[in-house]
Amino acid sequence: MEEDCIFCKIVDKKIPAEIVYENNNTIAFLDISPASKGHTLVISKKHSKIISDMADKDLNDLILTVKNLSSILLKFNKGVNLVQSNGKEAGQEVFHVHFHLIPRSENDNLDVGRWNSHKYKDEKERKAVANKIRSFF
Amino acid sequence: MEEDCIFCKIVDKKIPAEIVYENNNTIAFLDISPASKGHTLVISKKHSKIISDMADKDLNDLILTVKNLSSILLKFNKGVNLVQSNGKEAGQEVFHVHFHLIPRSENDNLDVGRWNSHKYKDEKERKAVANKIRSFF
Repeated sequence: MEEDCIFCKIVDKKIPAEIVYENNNTIAFLDISPASKGHTLVISKKHSKIISDMADKDLNDLILTVKNLSSILLKFNKGVNLVQSNGKEAGQEVFHVHFHLIPRSENDNLDVGRWNSHKYKDEKERKAVANKIRSFF
Repeated sequence: MEEDCIFCKIVDKKIPAEIVYENNNTIAFLDISPASKGHTLVISKKHSKIISDMADKDLNDLILTVKNLSSILLKFNKGVNLVQSNGKEAGQEVFHVHFHLIPRSENDNLDVGRWNSHKYKDEKERKAVANKIRSFF
């Protein structure tokens, strides 16, 4: 538990949330600023700031709850986007890893999962980026 | 392997891709229509259309590669968004489960991870949505 983390406080039931599911390791609740009806957040009960800080076991538990909840949301929605943001430049506002599950419907005009294309300067730049990533493995 | 799936063909090396990482169960390659420099897709080698179709074991393998690659991208980017889309209404274009890893920088003006807020009609509607989700567990 991280002292100033609002999601840790939700886990500890110190602040209220519309919890839709909870197990030993994870908890899911409605987003208070939803992109669409039923927009849900899924978190691990253990505090980690970003995905790369998470223990593999905790991440595995988390993604299985994300999967189960996605299955449920897809029972009464046409589509679901998962979004998970790492770093304030990525739009992260609460620094406790969370997956957004965003129900989608036809012609809802949400931008989630759509974006403008970036152009590499040339093939050389693209190869250089790929090589840089490879070099870390 | 699904006959007409372009990602299965990438797995089988029947069509080229800029592969940056591969292990027994997963493969990662640059998106051909990137949102930003280094935008990478991570997939399971086994074909599943949407996340709810995936075996838990395959999803666990997949998310660990997503985590490792996120760690790497965060070494030389300020942020990373994960996006995963289920259903054409969610913007899914290739029906083989894939996670987008989208590197972010300050003031890049990408919309990923930001969206307009939806308003529930009232508290009653919000509760009804939460109850509906709960009822499936």
